[in-house]
Amino acid sequence: MPDFGYTVSHTSGRARRGQLTTAHGTVETPVFMPVGTAATVKGMTSDGVACTGAEILLANTYHLMLRPGAERVGKLGGLHEFMNWRRPILTDSGGFQIMSLTDLRQLDDKGVEFRSHIDGAKFILTPERSVEIQHLLDSTITMVLDECTAHGVDEAAAADSMHLSMRWADRCREAFERRPGYGLFGIVQGSVFPNLRIESAAALTDIGFDGYAVGGLAVGEGQDKMFSVLDVTVPALPASHPRYLMGVGTPADIIGAVQRGIDMFDCVLPTRSGRTGQAFTRRGPLNIRNARHAEDPRPLDPDSDYPHVGGVSRAYLHHLFKAKEMLGPILLTLNNLHYYQELMDGIRGAIEAGQLDEFATAFHEEQARGDFDPI
Amino acid sequence: MPDFGYTVSHTSGRARRGQLTTAHGTVETPVFMPVGTAATVKGMTSDGVACTGAEILLANTYHLMLRPGAERVGKLGGLHEFMNWRRPILTDSGGFQIMSLTDLRQLDDKGVEFRSHIDGAKFILTPERSVEIQHLLDSTITMVLDECTAHGVDEAAAADSMHLSMRWADRCREAFERRPGYGLFGIVQGSVFPNLRIESAAALTDIGFDGYAVGGLAVGEGQDKMFSVLDVTVPALPASHPRYLMGVGTPADIIGAVQRGIDMFDCVLPTRSGRTGQAFTRRGPLNIRNARHAEDPRPLDPDSDYPHVGGVSRAYLHHLFKAKEMLGPILLTLNNLHYYQELMDGIRGAIEAGQLDEFATAFHEEQARGDFDPI
Repeated sequence: MPDFGYTVSHTSGRARRGQLTTAHGTVETPVFMPVGTAATVKGMTSDGVACTGAEILLANTYHLMLRPGAERVGKLGGLHEFMNWRRPILTDSGGFQIMSLTDLRQLDDKGVEFRSHIDGAKFILTPERSVEIQHLLDSTITMVLDECTAHGVDEAAAADSMHLSMRWADRCREAFERRPGYGLFGIVQGSVFPNLRIESAAALTDIGFDGYAVGGLAVGEGQDKMFSVLDVTVPALPASHPRYLMGVGTPADIIGAVQRGIDMFDCVLPTRSGRTGQAFTRRGPLNIRNARHAEDPRPLDPDSDYPHVGGVSRAYLHHLFKAKEMLGPILLTLNNLHYYQELMDGIRGAIEAGQLDEFATAFHEEQARGDFDPI
Repeated sequence: MPDFGYTVSHTSGRARRGQLTTAHGTVETPVFMPVGTAATVKGMTSDGVACTGAEILLANTYHLMLRPGAERVGKLGGLHEFMNWRRPILTDSGGFQIMSLTDLRQLDDKGVEFRSHIDGAKFILTPERSVEIQHLLDSTITMVLDECTAHGVDEAAAADSMHLSMRWADRCREAFERRPGYGLFGIVQGSVFPNLRIESAAALTDIGFDGYAVGGLAVGEGQDKMFSVLDVTVPALPASHPRYLMGVGTPADIIGAVQRGIDMFDCVLPTRSGRTGQAFTRRGPLNIRNARHAEDPRPLDPDSDYPHVGGVSRAYLHHLFKAKEMLGPILLTLNNLHYYQELMDGIRGAIEAGQLDEFATAFHEEQARGDFDPI
């Protein structure tokens, strides 16, 4: 079994091109992880997700601990076996969803008590239990339990929250059972305050993790502020380890974050927006429900030589969404995951060529051109 | 372009093993046609449907004439191009759905006037318009417009309705533009009355069609009655042409109908029931939502060497349905379409071997054993 490890093979400015080695295979970075919340990327088979080029998935501890339950997944052989995905899986800690999905939660130093959004049942999640759950799930990469502060929090509250997260990170490190090829990542908090972010990065580095995530961003602060937080946070993290920007984001967010030294991303955007009719293309996103597509015989991207979505036309996709057919969300999810994986492939190639800034410029120019001319 | 034709290569009792030659390829019979109502087999890509072994699909004229509209599909190159399914497509006439889905319909010799179940818009469907719509859709096999009588109709009403359907069949034959490799099928009506069925079969044979369907069955009369209608109807049809039992049915229905000389079938059962959690297996159907599957690590069919549904367990499928994940309906649809296609493959092999009755006996014995033993 290979040990968990990260090597950087190329750089372009602050951007890194690397390989993450795990118990479940190697991941080429920068990497985008599709989100498989409840042990399924919605509407896709595991084989289908693999065909888009995805090498690692994210699954949500919060959802899985409630249903079907961590002990059950463990008994069934872990997540890889359960969902028949044999490549790496990263699980979040459950903290973020508890904050965003549940009511009646009580948080203290020990952990967080909350009621399930499914049936109101009471649960307690502690740093130790979060790590245990992720172990039962057989996560390749375990995330520490943290508190994700809301956008707009003041500095004192952000500091208190970050300090709590650092104490929890330390307890997660203690609770995590080291196994070859498995890793534990810490999460930098501190909202938009540079001194707090730097303090948090130092605290985590002192504890020592297999990778470092930046949390608490993309919560409403805007892209400029997010990038400025990365500008101060990333240099405070060890260059030898992978860096993961949690929950991000748009294609432009990802390119800008890679330029600032981020290696890993996850986001529901390609899958969730695909289910509502938004298709990503090289000319920017479009809404397939728009009437202008109703008789358009062209594919989403007329210049692509790869038939991403089953060789069908915009008119057909439009029809599927109008008729509320499941195949509409399925095909746009497929298109969007392909788009994201091709974007990452382009980014990786550009870093290898030492031309990431040129790639970014070309990306923005092409997006700015707008959709392909009407027929 | 090959002409439309049918040849019988083997028989076993009254059952026939044949090849249907069309403009869009050859179909091995007896054949089961998955239903792609609105130009999509719900939850499946066209490639996915082809991978189950399906060689021909059924699409619904009624749904497509309302949305996206026959003229639009025609403008976009026809159904094969529209849904990227390059094999044969059979379309029904629209009559059955008008009777079952719409209100405020008025039927007379000219045709039927009805309001769309989508938006209440008024439409008129005549035999000529039904044929025209199916031409616009580029259907490989066009069905004549008929009136499908309800179960329990008295003999006089059944006779009147059948005579109307025969007049409409004649008008459809007149309206149908012959093209190499395309066919038009007549539909035998007459409810459960043998003399009416025989009269209808004779009337259609006089007009002359490329195939003959038996309509108005599986509407509540029960399997015994359905088989007894086939026992009198099928011998009245020309042996040289394919015979199609519309809207049927369960695996046992299909085997019994093949034994009575039927060559073609369509039914929503595998797809519709798959979406609600019913899985077909060689040991009979099961409901994956049942709690006994919650921790069952076995596949649906532990004895199968083919991983129909992505190599996942009953426990995973159970979880997907409990969590209302799209992948649940997708995987059971896939399983059920595979099951039906393997059933047809078994039937075809048995006819070739002259052992269809033995096949039927073994089928019923295996189904009667019930689900595989609990773990």
